[in-house]
Amino acid sequence: MKLKIAVAGLGRIGKIHFENLLQLNNVNLISVMDPNQEALNYAKEKGIENLHTNFNELVSQKELEAVVICTPTNTHADYIQIASKAGKQIFCEKPLDLKLERVKEIIEVVEQTKTKLMIGFNRRFDDEFKKLKTSIKSGNIGTPHIIKITSRDPSPPSIDYIKNSGGLFLDMTIHDFDMARFLVDKEIDEVYARGEALNDIEISKAGDIDTAVITMKYVDSTIAIIDNSRKAVYGYDQRIEVFGTQGMIQVDNLKVDNNTLFDKSGIKSSLPLNFFLERYQNAYKSEINNFVNSVIKNKPISVSAYDGMKSLQIALAAKKSLKENRPVKISEIN
Amino acid sequence: MKLKIAVAGLGRIGKIHFENLLQLNNVNLISVMDPNQEALNYAKEKGIENLHTNFNELVSQKELEAVVICTPTNTHADYIQIASKAGKQIFCEKPLDLKLERVKEIIEVVEQTKTKLMIGFNRRFDDEFKKLKTSIKSGNIGTPHIIKITSRDPSPPSIDYIKNSGGLFLDMTIHDFDMARFLVDKEIDEVYARGEALNDIEISKAGDIDTAVITMKYVDSTIAIIDNSRKAVYGYDQRIEVFGTQGMIQVDNLKVDNNTLFDKSGIKSSLPLNFFLERYQNAYKSEINNFVNSVIKNKPISVSAYDGMKSLQIALAAKKSLKENRPVKISEIN
Amino acid sequence: MKLKIAVAGLGRIGKIHFENLLQLNNVNLISVMDPNQEALNYAKEKGIENLHTNFNELVSQKELEAVVICTPTNTHADYIQIASKAGKQIFCEKPLDLKLERVKEIIEVVEQTKTKLMIGFNRRFDDEFKKLKTSIKSGNIGTPHIIKITSRDPSPPSIDYIKNSGGLFLDMTIHDFDMARFLVDKEIDEVYARGEALNDIEISKAGDIDTAVITMKYVDSTIAIIDNSRKAVYGYDQRIEVFGTQGMIQVDNLKVDNNTLFDKSGIKSSLPLNFFLERYQNAYKSEINNFVNSVIKNKPISVSAYDGMKSLQIALAAKKSLKENRPVKISEIN
Amino acid sequence: MKLKIAVAGLGRIGKIHFENLLQLNNVNLISVMDPNQEALNYAKEKGIENLHTNFNELVSQKELEAVVICTPTNTHADYIQIASKAGKQIFCEKPLDLKLERVKEIIEVVEQTKTKLMIGFNRRFDDEFKKLKTSIKSGNIGTPHIIKITSRDPSPPSIDYIKNSGGLFLDMTIHDFDMARFLVDKEIDEVYARGEALNDIEISKAGDIDTAVITMKYVDSTIAIIDNSRKAVYGYDQRIEVFGTQGMIQVDNLKVDNNTLFDKSGIKSSLPLNFFLERYQNAYKSEINNFVNSVIKNKPISVSAYDGMKSLQIALAAKKSLKENRPVKISEIN
Repeated sequence: MKLKIAVAGLGRIGKIHFENLLQLNNVNLISVMDPNQEALNYAKEKGIENLHTNFNELVSQKELEAVVICTPTNTHADYIQIASKAGKQIFCEKPLDLKLERVKEIIEVVEQTKTKLMIGFNRRFDDEFKKLKTSIKSGNIGTPHIIKITSRDPSPPSIDYIKNSGGLFLDMTIHDFDMARFLVDKEIDEVYARGEALNDIEISKAGDIDTAVITMKYVDSTIAIIDNSRKAVYGYDQRIEVFGTQGMIQVDNLKVDNNTLFDKSGIKSSLPLNFFLERYQNAYKSEINNFVNSVIKNKPISVSAYDGMKSLQIALAAKKSLKENRPVKISEIN
Repeated sequence: MKLKIAVAGLGRIGKIHFENLLQLNNVNLISVMDPNQEALNYAKEKGIENLHTNFNELVSQKELEAVVICTPTNTHADYIQIASKAGKQIFCEKPLDLKLERVKEIIEVVEQTKTKLMIGFNRRFDDEFKKLKTSIKSGNIGTPHIIKITSRDPSPPSIDYIKNSGGLFLDMTIHDFDMARFLVDKEIDEVYARGEALNDIEISKAGDIDTAVITMKYVDSTIAIIDNSRKAVYGYDQRIEVFGTQGMIQVDNLKVDNNTLFDKSGIKSSLPLNFFLERYQNAYKSEINNFVNSVIKNKPISVSAYDGMKSLQIALAAKKSLKENRPVKISEIN
Repeated sequence: MKLKIAVAGLGRIGKIHFENLLQLNNVNLISVMDPNQEALNYAKEKGIENLHTNFNELVSQKELEAVVICTPTNTHADYIQIASKAGKQIFCEKPLDLKLERVKEIIEVVEQTKTKLMIGFNRRFDDEFKKLKTSIKSGNIGTPHIIKITSRDPSPPSIDYIKNSGGLFLDMTIHDFDMARFLVDKEIDEVYARGEALNDIEISKAGDIDTAVITMKYVDSTIAIIDNSRKAVYGYDQRIEVFGTQGMIQVDNLKVDNNTLFDKSGIKSSLPLNFFLERYQNAYKSEINNFVNSVIKNKPISVSAYDGMKSLQIALAAKKSLKENRPVKISEIN
Repeated sequence: MKLKIAVAGLGRIGKIHFENLLQLNNVNLISVMDPNQEALNYAKEKGIENLHTNFNELVSQKELEAVVICTPTNTHADYIQIASKAGKQIFCEKPLDLKLERVKEIIEVVEQTKTKLMIGFNRRFDDEFKKLKTSIKSGNIGTPHIIKITSRDPSPPSIDYIKNSGGLFLDMTIHDFDMARFLVDKEIDEVYARGEALNDIEISKAGDIDTAVITMKYVDSTIAIIDNSRKAVYGYDQRIEVFGTQGMIQVDNLKVDNNTLFDKSGIKSSLPLNFFLERYQNAYKSEINNFVNSVIKNKPISVSAYDGMKSLQIALAAKKSLKENRPVKISEIN
């Protein structure tokens, strides 16, 4: 028995999930929804015949058991509500919504319908960070004191994208906020954010920033630091360092290759993998596989709407902190 | 139009090619041959219904266009002859045969039948070594002077396997001999081999060695060194260093992960990928894909029977050198 | 003509300067002052015969040209004043004083007496950090956006030491504050500090912290982050990373040795140099040499009392920030 | 009581020992001998007043206890004989002589006179290689099977130097031969050498080579490989790898600094220390200190004339192997 599943939204992320679902033996990818005809043609070429431009139509298929939502952020909440009420199991890309209230409504809905809702925090499924968490849990470094997350993109998205993104913290740092919670299974208590638009005046005009440093205190006085940039010319920079009473673990970038050239000008090695599609290729596979297994085996999902809400809260606190230039308690955001 | 292909021999390597062929869009894996019922059941579960225990039967299928031979070494030559005469395109695992004469006969056969015959030197398709070759060719290190290949297995195979393997040089080092030719597109002129059975008295009793150092001179006085061991406790050790007039390139091992632990006892990082299945996972995919494309597009194959013969010659020269403790010219082996 | 110099205070740091001065060809180390007889014996064994227990006595020697002050912090200001009025050139260990007013008084004194006063920020003379600064200045990474300084001690000093140290920021982080100014030759505008006593309840009782994260904004919106710990079990951790529009430079720790062990449990390399005496051994030599040359050649000194004052201001701002849990402008500290 | 010592020969190496001796507290460097006036002036400026142009004269000083011989190789044997008969303790730079017979004569002489004679194999005193040896001895890698020594100079010496050097094996590789013996305290049994003049036709005309690979079997079947080049454009390349039943140790090059630059073209780090003066700076200090202590405390010396003779034998065997293109037993050289 294969899980009958659909993908809604065949943009960049949607296609990743689409391709990965096609490789799974326990999945029957029966239909696709996208307002764009080109996207539907893409699906058709890959053998999908049941194609839709309307989400309601998509989930009205009785045999459909689960849906993977990769449509624009402003549709997430509505679609989750519709799918949930139609009794479908749901995987939804982050963020659930840019407004905390709406996220809370969604959480209530899925609690009532008792449908599963998993949020797309792909980095939790990265082998490097999974090993890091395991290593911390096993006590290799004693009690963690300082967690440092470096997260830099190779280049900023378009200004149009930025305008609708909710800003750096809700769009980009939200992954790092989730990672901060995930690694030590503890909640953040307070946030202080500093940020600037240093790369492009247009980003500033759009009311956003492209460079940020965020200091966070956990409920138990562990401290975390995140540093972000929208533009690291040397590639996608995704490092984590956790320092504790008994030692430190560093997770370094994965490089394009392992060739090293020695010549009279120096020793040269390869750059980090260029962007998230390369860096998190396996994490995306592992993530969707995890969702599928949770549904088939009726097990609790790994990343809940609650996780989505907590990261959003931290992001909103960071936004408030940046605006007011003061540390902001998570409890202030409700 | 998909290439109709079969796999003969579903042992360890056979299964790798089998699985990889199943993933290719331009391939129709129509049948499998293996004398072992368990292997055939494995294929059946994966959806293959056309199953055989006899190679003649397998290639008698008219629609079959190509065959991937992964049966034991002593069957390679016969099966190639049969498949070739039946007009099938052939991919055959290394080595073609342990005897040089037989290999020469095969070369003649495939020349007459004008069938393609590609040999399974998988490391040529490894991204690290491909980049190394490209880098050498582009002149990054000037003229190569010294090529150093380190190739060590994590643990020796069974004594039974060793007895039928043709010995370390024909079984294991043959990959390194091929790499030495591949990297600089030049032929070896002379070989001096030194080797010992240092790990297991049984290997010695079987007339084989488990540790070796081979020095080779190319036709143009470039020097290559290979060092082998059947037992590296820290994992599969596959490194190459090429030193030239303008610099040096090192290709280091790929590690299990990129986590590094600092504690009071030192700085610890992960071991190299454990064995060839992990290390050359992508190389195998790339290799079989390369064969399929050569057949479909009717292009020259990348690794010919001639390449197989040359490496065998070097291996036989190394064997003679070890026995007689003197440098042996490749021209002595005929 | 050799510079006639004296060392006041033969504690840990005093001995370093003492030994380094003995190696310099252009120096005549003529006398030593220390209240402790053991310290004076030490100097005597090294051939110094002119020994004092009183600073006034020491600087009353007419022939004496310069004095290196390594006595406890609470004597620095007085001794500088005395030496300065006696017309001696002065090298003084950091910090000048724990109070900003006193430091300002000293600055006035040396301006009036026109004596040189160099402050012991040894890290400015470390080859790694000098190269980093040169590399930044040469534009290798474009405009710096984020500066990250990791500075962790291997183990906390005694509680008695801590009680008189002025606290983590004035005692330990002050080196990092100076480094932040030094690397980009720009002033800090605002500081936000978070810190905890996580290692030892006694540190907490003494009103101090042992773990801290400090975020700083420069006058031009470059951001710096410092993270400190009094206890890194893997050794003295002194790393800097500077990220800019065109790239990033990392300065890693120097390790005890370059041996790497591969065994079945992993790949193990050596720890960072254990503490500042090893790590900054050459920096101390270069520093005192620099002072001596400034005096002999009558050139401007490299690290002025103004530099000492600025770092103190930042440290006091960090202290205020920690106490009030809010970002503090440097201009608030006066 | 300080050891009264003299240095004979103030060339490049002579100056190193001269400077290091000046730093030692238990040494009184009383005189210097060099045929060259400039060299004597150099010594005079450093405060040495007892200057000679003749070796006999130098050692005729009764109070002189030890002499450090750094004159040209063809004077070593004679000077050792003279000094030894005058009852002086001797440190002599390698090689003792280019002829085996002469070395044997010297060994007899010093045995008769019971004077100490230490040979300048400086690499034995390098901290990295000392740690490597200790690590091997402690069993960290079990029984060593393969020892790989990479030893490449940044650029060839002058042709004149080469003509009088005895050739690559006696001049350069002799250090590596000694290292091969030193690391495992075992003798070499057989050598196979391959070499070419690949960099400069003048080297070939002078009858020498500039690139070599030497395979050696120890008396117990451990295998060693040395690879040499006179010209590594990226600097002085001095690496050792020892592989054994329980693991592997690698000693990598020491780099100029620890700064790493990430930009759009790659990740760049610093080159190895440029040449032996930088790389073995501390080893030279440790070496001469070791000699001085052996003399003062009348302890056995660390590197004997016998060690010098054994390395010469291996070098001569390598020379014969290269000429005759066959493995040569050390026992053939006598």
